Amino acid sequence: MVKFRVIFNILGKLLIGEAVFLLLALLIAFFYNETDTVAFLWAALIALGVGAASLLASGNINQEDLGKREGYIIVGLVWVVFSFFGCLPYVFSGAIPSFTNAFFETMSGFTTTGSSILNNIEELPHATLLWRSLTQWMGGMGIIVMFLAILPTLGIGGRELFVAEVPGPSPDKLTPRIKETARNLWGLYILFTAVETILLYVGGMTFFDAINHAFTTMATGGYSTKQASVGYFTSPYIQYVIIVFMFIAGTNFTLSYAAITGRVGKVFKDEEFKVYTAIVVLFTVIITIGLMFSGTATEQAFRDSLFTVVSIITTTGYATADYLLWGPFLGMLVFVLFFVGGSAGSTGGGVKVVRVWLLFKNSFYELKRLVHPSAVIPTRYNNNVVEQRTMTNIMAFFIFYIIIFMLSSVLMSLWSDDIFAAFSAVGTTLGNIGPGFGEVGPMENFSKLPDLAKWFLSFLMVLGRLELFTILVLFSPAFWKH
Amino acid sequence: MVKFRVIFNILGKLLIGEAVFLLLALLIAFFYNETDTVAFLWAALIALGVGAASLLASGNINQEDLGKREGYIIVGLVWVVFSFFGCLPYVFSGAIPSFTNAFFETMSGFTTTGSSILNNIEELPHATLLWRSLTQWMGGMGIIVMFLAILPTLGIGGRELFVAEVPGPSPDKLTPRIKETARNLWGLYILFTAVETILLYVGGMTFFDAINHAFTTMATGGYSTKQASVGYFTSPYIQYVIIVFMFIAGTNFTLSYAAITGRVGKVFKDEEFKVYTAIVVLFTVIITIGLMFSGTATEQAFRDSLFTVVSIITTTGYATADYLLWGPFLGMLVFVLFFVGGSAGSTGGGVKVVRVWLLFKNSFYELKRLVHPSAVIPTRYNNNVVEQRTMTNIMAFFIFYIIIFMLSSVLMSLWSDDIFAAFSAVGTTLGNIGPGFGEVGPMENFSKLPDLAKWFLSFLMVLGRLELFTILVLFSPAFWKH
Repeated sequence: MVKFRVIFNILGKLLIGEAVFLLLALLIAFFYNETDTVAFLWAALIALGVGAASLLASGNINQEDLGKREGYIIVGLVWVVFSFFGCLPYVFSGAIPSFTNAFFETMSGFTTTGSSILNNIEELPHATLLWRSLTQWMGGMGIIVMFLAILPTLGIGGRELFVAEVPGPSPDKLTPRIKETARNLWGLYILFTAVETILLYVGGMTFFDAINHAFTTMATGGYSTKQASVGYFTSPYIQYVIIVFMFIAGTNFTLSYAAITGRVGKVFKDEEFKVYTAIVVLFTVIITIGLMFSGTATEQAFRDSLFTVVSIITTTGYATADYLLWGPFLGMLVFVLFFVGGSAGSTGGGVKVVRVWLLFKNSFYELKRLVHPSAVIPTRYNNNVVEQRTMTNIMAFFIFYIIIFMLSSVLMSLWSDDIFAAFSAVGTTLGNIGPGFGEVGPMENFSKLPDLAKWFLSFLMVLGRLELFTILVLFSPAFWKH
Repeated sequence: MVKFRVIFNILGKLLIGEAVFLLLALLIAFFYNETDTVAFLWAALIALGVGAASLLASGNINQEDLGKREGYIIVGLVWVVFSFFGCLPYVFSGAIPSFTNAFFETMSGFTTTGSSILNNIEELPHATLLWRSLTQWMGGMGIIVMFLAILPTLGIGGRELFVAEVPGPSPDKLTPRIKETARNLWGLYILFTAVETILLYVGGMTFFDAINHAFTTMATGGYSTKQASVGYFTSPYIQYVIIVFMFIAGTNFTLSYAAITGRVGKVFKDEEFKVYTAIVVLFTVIITIGLMFSGTATEQAFRDSLFTVVSIITTTGYATADYLLWGPFLGMLVFVLFFVGGSAGSTGGGVKVVRVWLLFKNSFYELKRLVHPSAVIPTRYNNNVVEQRTMTNIMAFFIFYIIIFMLSSVLMSLWSDDIFAAFSAVGTTLGNIGPGFGEVGPMENFSKLPDLAKWFLSFLMVLGRLELFTILVLFSPAFWKH
């Protein structure tokens, strides 16, 4: 029997947490005294009320009641619950009158995807814009704390629950106790956000724009306060600052923690970090050359390339240049990055660098194994042997990813202008990136899609964000038996 | 040390075999007395001469000298050698003046791909057209005999050599001895070809058109004697006959052999056959409904759907309708079939039904394994447990397929009008299908591509035809060590 009381209890607590953030937005709304104050008041009260009711109704719970199945259900539901209550301010204030659009925008926020249905961003009240950025910031924080601290350390399934997460070597346990780990990660996340805010403010952004962009950079979310995204800010300094912080946000936070605490050597010895850096350099060089060939000035070509490559590989999704105009070859390079994603243990989505890298490595070893069928040739990672079970799991993950990508694209093609637009809409939402190609390109938005498509893409966002298995398992009959 | 003497010996023998077929085409050229007689004479003499020289120079060889590595090299080279000599008639007669185009057309023939650079098919002499169809017929025969008879039964690596081929259960050994197996398969192949020729002739095709189409149907090749492909023959009877034989050609030949020898029950109990049939039915129903919605008459919609689905899944590539005009959803369904392919042990290319099916099945079991991590939950196929080693190999094959597909598409996008055209050109050649989308659609051809692209796609054809590993292993350093 699934213990629903535990689920209500924990979701209630989390919902009260969301209400606190809604109250924060309410304060900002008071401060700016715009049209959205009442909307935030109501939304916060509803979230608080429902959260408290759920908590009270469920009574006291024992730690032991929180089993693996309850864990899966909570993780699967929390993004949906948060998006449901989180979209209320948009609906109440009329900033996004359609519930479907508001839910899509909020799910896109909490999953740090960044796909938007808005085409009047600059007209929105300050508190609404801040709430939009905050959904991403919370989502980014949530994913790090969940994957790196709570799940591996708590009893709920531990490694099994995220058997496909942070593969190969276990992530360094920052500290033995979960609370301290979570606190360290929070601290680091807030520190990076604060430093970026200051650097952007120094570079000429308003404080409001600076903090919003810092929120959505660190979450690799990609929401901007400007319709033209980061392209609005033509200052190269600002763009380079954002590049650096996107890159950091796409790096495993345990590595950043090591670097901050003086163990910089650890970072440069990490195999995933080296591969991540190499991919960024390689793609940037090729695209820079490509853009220079088509007549772009050197620095501009370099900056546009680097910005786009880092924005896509980290799954942030900010845009400064419209890669739809880059021709098939450079566009294809951008599309390939849709299938890489950030590092494990970062806020980035997608398949993750370590998985892609191990799949490549293992394929080469597979040829070796074919030549020497009797020899034992294990795949290695960071000088350790990758267990067969882990390798199989990564392969299964990737195959799931491709199967879901293909089947979803079939469905999406019902609502798309052409086949590739369908692929790109699925790729960008499943990978939590943001912009796609064609009708959902970096200078376009998702508003024109029919409602059904938006609900479907919202589902893909949470599926991708929770690395498939966690959600899929809920649809497996075996999960619900006895 | 690789024993090159053995390689020369066997390739010499095979080349003499090709020369025999060239002499056959020469006879036809004499009969029709067109412009290509001298071209075939020279081509046959050269192939015969080089074959004989290679055979003589290599002297007597021992059966034991034919090791696994020699086996790999021969298999990898034979398609290239055959295409090199096989394209000579085109070049000599001026039917295809460019060597690149002639090689592409011949490789597309021997690999049973069917992608063509010709845009004047009806103007070609009869013997040239017949030779073009014969390259496919030989290629189809070669692949069946190689995968089902020679490699599993001979000493050269046996199951290891094609460790990824006919996965799960071993294919039924038709007879214990290789010669008899090969003879049975030849007989069956010739029988089917003869029956189809007669049925097409009865339906109103000229005998020449009938035999050409029978050759390229049974090979799942797709070359036609008409520029408009099978669409030229508007008779529903002819199209249905071709559908039936394409379907047979995409079925495991050991099953067909069982059916012919009275064991029909075996066919309908085979899991791959059931899935293959189910996919055809499912896709045909959906596309039929889709076409009817857009105003096509019922029988026409059904026939166009069924023809296209069977043509693409079997990787034949004949066209009666232009699926580029079907809109994104139906077009997407066609594109998805690019990644299925025929049955193992058929002349069809692609990933193969059994692999796709086992990947699906295994993914579902993977969810079960996640829910019950301590339980042993094997994947089953035809009521047998699929060994972990086999399953891993299938997964590795698919991942290789996707990696190669993506990297090749990046390269191909250098020469394509748009990103999706690049994907489709790679998908159709790697899967040995024939037509793609966009600039290489079913009513277009590959002639406009630059030469480099044609060489690259020729490489993909042989890579796909030999199921990746066999070719890739030749590029692995481990293969060439000690």
